[in-house]
Amino acid sequence: MPETHRSIEEYIHSITEDARKASIILAKTSTGVKNRALREAADLIRKGAPEIQNENRLDLEAGRQKGLSSAMLDRLELTGQRLEGIASMLEEVAMLPDPVGEVTDMRVRPNGLRVGRMRVPLGVIGLIYESRPNVTADAAALCLKSGNACVLRGGSEAIHSNAILARQLQEALRIHGLPQAAVSFVETTDREAVRALCRQRGRVDVIIPRGGKSLIETVVDLANIPVLKHYDGVCHVYVDERVDPGMARRICMNAKIQRPGVCNAAETFLIHKAQSGEFLRALLDDLKENNVEVRGCPETLQLDPSLKPAVEDDWKTEYLDRIVSIKIVGDLDQALDHIDRYSSRHTEAIVTADYAASQRFLREVDSSSVMVNASTRFSDGGQYGLGAEMGISTDKLHARGPMGLVELTCQKFIVYGDGQIRE
Amino acid sequence: MPETHRSIEEYIHSITEDARKASIILAKTSTGVKNRALREAADLIRKGAPEIQNENRLDLEAGRQKGLSSAMLDRLELTGQRLEGIASMLEEVAMLPDPVGEVTDMRVRPNGLRVGRMRVPLGVIGLIYESRPNVTADAAALCLKSGNACVLRGGSEAIHSNAILARQLQEALRIHGLPQAAVSFVETTDREAVRALCRQRGRVDVIIPRGGKSLIETVVDLANIPVLKHYDGVCHVYVDERVDPGMARRICMNAKIQRPGVCNAAETFLIHKAQSGEFLRALLDDLKENNVEVRGCPETLQLDPSLKPAVEDDWKTEYLDRIVSIKIVGDLDQALDHIDRYSSRHTEAIVTADYAASQRFLREVDSSSVMVNASTRFSDGGQYGLGAEMGISTDKLHARGPMGLVELTCQKFIVYGDGQIRE
Repeated sequence: MPETHRSIEEYIHSITEDARKASIILAKTSTGVKNRALREAADLIRKGAPEIQNENRLDLEAGRQKGLSSAMLDRLELTGQRLEGIASMLEEVAMLPDPVGEVTDMRVRPNGLRVGRMRVPLGVIGLIYESRPNVTADAAALCLKSGNACVLRGGSEAIHSNAILARQLQEALRIHGLPQAAVSFVETTDREAVRALCRQRGRVDVIIPRGGKSLIETVVDLANIPVLKHYDGVCHVYVDERVDPGMARRICMNAKIQRPGVCNAAETFLIHKAQSGEFLRALLDDLKENNVEVRGCPETLQLDPSLKPAVEDDWKTEYLDRIVSIKIVGDLDQALDHIDRYSSRHTEAIVTADYAASQRFLREVDSSSVMVNASTRFSDGGQYGLGAEMGISTDKLHARGPMGLVELTCQKFIVYGDGQIRE
Repeated sequence: MPETHRSIEEYIHSITEDARKASIILAKTSTGVKNRALREAADLIRKGAPEIQNENRLDLEAGRQKGLSSAMLDRLELTGQRLEGIASMLEEVAMLPDPVGEVTDMRVRPNGLRVGRMRVPLGVIGLIYESRPNVTADAAALCLKSGNACVLRGGSEAIHSNAILARQLQEALRIHGLPQAAVSFVETTDREAVRALCRQRGRVDVIIPRGGKSLIETVVDLANIPVLKHYDGVCHVYVDERVDPGMARRICMNAKIQRPGVCNAAETFLIHKAQSGEFLRALLDDLKENNVEVRGCPETLQLDPSLKPAVEDDWKTEYLDRIVSIKIVGDLDQALDHIDRYSSRHTEAIVTADYAASQRFLREVDSSSVMVNASTRFSDGGQYGLGAEMGISTDKLHARGPMGLVELTCQKFIVYGDGQIRE
């Protein structure tokens, strides 16, 4: 934190006020200039790789001394390949269509007024995130392309890596005549900065926390401005009465083990009782072969008494691991009830050959993504064709599901008149 | 509050849990059934007018004893004409298109997955409002049509009127086989109920406060769920360098005096210096003739030293009265700066004959409605053709400007597959 500020509060106030001013300029910056700045940043990161890696080594060294796990140290490391990944991401974001300025729903009213909606940036986005330094570049790139200024507050373990990535982005902005405060970086690791950033009503328009559940809950409790967030992914695959058993096994297994540590992996299989014999036996074999621990309902345990019984908490748990809970249900209604009760409303899939069941599931499941005959693992901005994503919202307001550039904008009404007054 | 509940907390928990269950049923209710229930409610209100007016008299009597102003008593009264207005509104909402179930953006991905968005209700909407009892019927009708359950918490002055209107709506729901908890009414006037309703995370999806600034601020501070809200309308009309002076005077006067007590009335005129002579003199005459008090910047006072000088607070004030502040500006940039600094981001209008100025104003003003050559008084759901409105959001997230039925819904992703798994 620069010494000119007397308190964290004052420091964050000053950063966010500068970001707010930058956001006004950025909102009217042309797509071409924004894209050139993004490509410039890619070049700077490629050229500056040795310098970035020097800073990254400071974080890795500090992490080792603090006794971070090897998994955490791995996530922290900026290898040459990862830096190239960041540079390519910046170039890809430059190629995405710019949502800003789009006018839709233009209609002529009976009095001749033409009323429509114009897509505009949100303004200033506050990002509060943990460990992985590539989030610094990802988030800044998406905000910049969508015409928003951002204020970045990364985890303390990555402070040197985050700071130098932010400086490269700021340098790219400077070269193209844009205000460096459009990518603002909070230089202190003091936790008080999180609280202050969450309470900048009038200067910050939305806070996006990215990280574990406790970070997100802290931010929701502190914030007096809107928060776009992503809680757990307790995702379900329901295997219906009539299915192609091969397809059902493939989808269940893919949803569980293709990458168990992520939010769109399945945590619970609901199996229609018509499939609780041969099909379930084969699925249990697949799971055992792939070292997946099963926690079963009493009916499931009848098939294999060596399995661990599922307790109430299992139905609510995001394992993020090679563990799955399995429940046999009497019909689609029971499956829907279970999902309504235990789902975190992220992603649910049905496997079925039945048209009516597929339609009811699509309509009635209240989750951000609802799928028929596909793996929950597809719930992702890239897979959906959004280009890049800022996270997956489990909220219902503003953004639901994967958030792309459009979700970082809003629409204002525009009205073209020729002198109309109201009678 | 029914005596079976031991605390307000428990009472609100039980109401919102019932509303949540009702919302699941309502979300899958057909448009036809919802429309029949709305028309039934219109009939019941017409037939029940004498009974409703008896209850209304209890509120009016209590209001007189409490010494409410005649303006407040007037707003409270349910005349025959107002009840007919409520009945017609219910029939109009029945005629609006149902936003629920609409599927858009359906695209085929390279792997054959079809990914689109389906519009669905938000779930449970908590409404916290003041005095006017017609809000009970308006809000319930919009929520019902958009497939949402609502929990209504009206002002204590209108408790009897609100309760009987809610009962008529519930009776209409019952007749058409819908759960009465879809329109839930908080029967206590205890203020603790507001706090409890604002903290029903998991049961209430959004809170919409309708009323004065202090109510809205209280709700924002209490809530741990999203709030859709409407702060002040400090609206500006900017008269540019080149204008049709007759049009500019008409628009200024209409924006100020057609109905001064509402949020989309203008509070400040910004006048380009090229218009600070003859035009401004004529405008000041118009204002004087219509008993509008002017608070002017020093340059304005030079034209008429008898005017009251504007102080800093004037630029921030929503007068809601026959008062206007006037500032002479050097150019469009100064006008944009003033608006950025003092506007409440509700509605701003430019009067201009200049193409470039109109386009800059439309793009650069960051308000929920931005107009060219039209009165700010048009900023309204009905005027925009949205059919009916739940209020005007000055937020940027989810809903901005007049909120119609669509703003009471969200979109989930739906995915049609035929066995796809992720590689």
